[in-house]
Amino acid sequence: MAKIKGNAVIGQSGGPTVVINQSLVGVIEAAQKREEIGKIYGARNGVLGMKEGNFIELQDLGHEELEALANTPSSALGTTRDKPDEQYCKEIFEVFRKNEIHYFFYIGGNDSASTAHILNDLSEKVDYDLRAIHIPKTIDNDLAVTDHCPGYGSAAKFVALALMGDNLDNAALPGVKIDIIMGRHTGWLTAAGMLARQGPDDGPHLIYVPEVPLPMSRFIEDVDRVYKAQGRCLVAVSEGITDEKGELWAKRAQTVMEQDAHGNVTLSGTGLLADLLISELRRAKPEIKRMRGDTFGYLQRCFPTVVSKVDAQEAYTVGREAVRYATDWAMDGSVAIRRLSESDAEYKMETFLTPLSSVAAKTKTMPKKFCQSPGVIEEAFLDYLRPLVGELPRCARLP
Amino acid sequence: MAKIKGNAVIGQSGGPTVVINQSLVGVIEAAQKREEIGKIYGARNGVLGMKEGNFIELQDLGHEELEALANTPSSALGTTRDKPDEQYCKEIFEVFRKNEIHYFFYIGGNDSASTAHILNDLSEKVDYDLRAIHIPKTIDNDLAVTDHCPGYGSAAKFVALALMGDNLDNAALPGVKIDIIMGRHTGWLTAAGMLARQGPDDGPHLIYVPEVPLPMSRFIEDVDRVYKAQGRCLVAVSEGITDEKGELWAKRAQTVMEQDAHGNVTLSGTGLLADLLISELRRAKPEIKRMRGDTFGYLQRCFPTVVSKVDAQEAYTVGREAVRYATDWAMDGSVAIRRLSESDAEYKMETFLTPLSSVAAKTKTMPKKFCQSPGVIEEAFLDYLRPLVGELPRCARLP
Repeated sequence: MAKIKGNAVIGQSGGPTVVINQSLVGVIEAAQKREEIGKIYGARNGVLGMKEGNFIELQDLGHEELEALANTPSSALGTTRDKPDEQYCKEIFEVFRKNEIHYFFYIGGNDSASTAHILNDLSEKVDYDLRAIHIPKTIDNDLAVTDHCPGYGSAAKFVALALMGDNLDNAALPGVKIDIIMGRHTGWLTAAGMLARQGPDDGPHLIYVPEVPLPMSRFIEDVDRVYKAQGRCLVAVSEGITDEKGELWAKRAQTVMEQDAHGNVTLSGTGLLADLLISELRRAKPEIKRMRGDTFGYLQRCFPTVVSKVDAQEAYTVGREAVRYATDWAMDGSVAIRRLSESDAEYKMETFLTPLSSVAAKTKTMPKKFCQSPGVIEEAFLDYLRPLVGELPRCARLP
Repeated sequence: MAKIKGNAVIGQSGGPTVVINQSLVGVIEAAQKREEIGKIYGARNGVLGMKEGNFIELQDLGHEELEALANTPSSALGTTRDKPDEQYCKEIFEVFRKNEIHYFFYIGGNDSASTAHILNDLSEKVDYDLRAIHIPKTIDNDLAVTDHCPGYGSAAKFVALALMGDNLDNAALPGVKIDIIMGRHTGWLTAAGMLARQGPDDGPHLIYVPEVPLPMSRFIEDVDRVYKAQGRCLVAVSEGITDEKGELWAKRAQTVMEQDAHGNVTLSGTGLLADLLISELRRAKPEIKRMRGDTFGYLQRCFPTVVSKVDAQEAYTVGREAVRYATDWAMDGSVAIRRLSESDAEYKMETFLTPLSSVAAKTKTMPKKFCQSPGVIEEAFLDYLRPLVGELPRCARLP
């Protein structure tokens, strides 16, 4: 494809992360250096701002401002859960035409890749020159093709630290503790709790993920077994766990349910799943005296200071590379990460571009080599995870 | 009082904090240097371990081990919520006699001060030489006499950072967000959310504390007013808020209630209060589309890496000073902190000893100068709080 001269637009979509502004700044800094890109428009609230022409100009931001922005959690441009249909996209094109926008960068998850894909298809239909690049971002780590997703490493660090602290808390004041962690369809984030284990009796002792169905009877047996053996039990549970029929446990727990614009059931922002699990346990095992449940909720994705260095760097890199693919390569697609070394000490990555259709609306669940049996995450997962999270504090113990 | 030669026992009590082991190490390091103290026994699970003679010897721990221990969150000796009665204390004295224990250091909140007070009174009755020192520790910051409590500054830092991130999250994806924060009788910890505000439109926009009763109608009006003005609303709520009759809102939210050994209602470890507030709001203001509630839960008190430097230093200092009061001064009492300067830059403190009876079973609520009206914490509170938490990251904004 030929190089296009024109303005660029950047949007952020879906749930914020602690490093999503790194990607934004990666795009801005790279685009500032390109002759073929004129103005750099930031769209307020993703496609919503694109449709309404609600832009802020970013091409003149200086290095210091950008650096401060990159280190600020959450989506500085605002975000959206809107998923454009054809009419919506036509309105966006009107705005693009009017503003001579020929570069479209969209930072988000698989819904955002879908949005980019639809816009890209439509641009071809109406013969409008548009480079459309999806920049991966999700704490869920559930995008297809890429080895892992920017945003995940830092959220995984939060989960690991939270469970490390909670394991010490539970060891000091024993009982059953259940922690609900984000993850609608996949257990990548919950499984990061593995990093909290430093000694043989450390929790989380059980880790339940959506990939492996969990009958309630099995949950109760598991907790009871650990409690009897260790006098305590710390449990990490994905919000999206299901029973043996694939029914969400969270769904049963909710009396009032809300759905977002994509037709998803709202799982976060409520403590009901933890409360359901506790009440089932209390009924089955009244002899266990102390039971508590926490839902980590939104703290997992935007907590200032809890940032993985590798994650922050990679989030910046995928933004920067997006501009290179759109300009030097004149390509459309989704930026993905390839791991060049399996070893922790030598961890290296490179980016590549994958077709938007290979990422759009697809979900990458944890493979069987990482999880097969309810409550258990395989050790092999740690080799995958460790370099993405980076170093964690060591906890001391009295003999 | 005369100096006593004998062994020492240290215990940790109540909820763990991220700096409680600093106090433990402060006691150990100071006691290791005292000729009049022989063995240093660590009691497993506080008074429970003292009653059962379940001790670990700490006098030979080296500097490196102690430093690692000091930097590890939660109570390394284990903790308890047991509150000894006379029979319980008699059993403790048997163990003390048998082990020649004449120095008793107990790290905890006002329940722990009570325990120390009871043991001290009983030791005088049975004419047993015992120096009893209470070492303050509570994230609730609710101990009488002392300016503030070790453990509070770090938990306040967690709350401030969590709300800072959640404010950015809520700004990016607007709606009503309710965050439930620990604090049974006092709002000190919840009020620390004030530090999350860096700009005029930053949340938390409303902060509700137990000191100021909150009718549900007022809550709904407040949230609606902020939402109408700003298109979003971030609310920080103490778990212990009450209605105008003094009834706990959390109590109404709970169908199953648990009580701990002190007769307290369990407020943490459940998401029910957030869910109640959301459902009341949803009923009254169905036009507000996005409402979420998180309960920070146990993450607030033991999160590794989120530590206030001043708090960690002071936690160590009160432990070290406890030994000085018990030996050089041959006194019983509770170690307290006096602030020597009101100014942030010049913050300085000193310790002093206050009678056990002045702290035991007493609760220091927030004074009227800090909170008078529902939802509002006065600016004056920030002068009190800032030096205890230390520096926080600055968040960047797009214009």
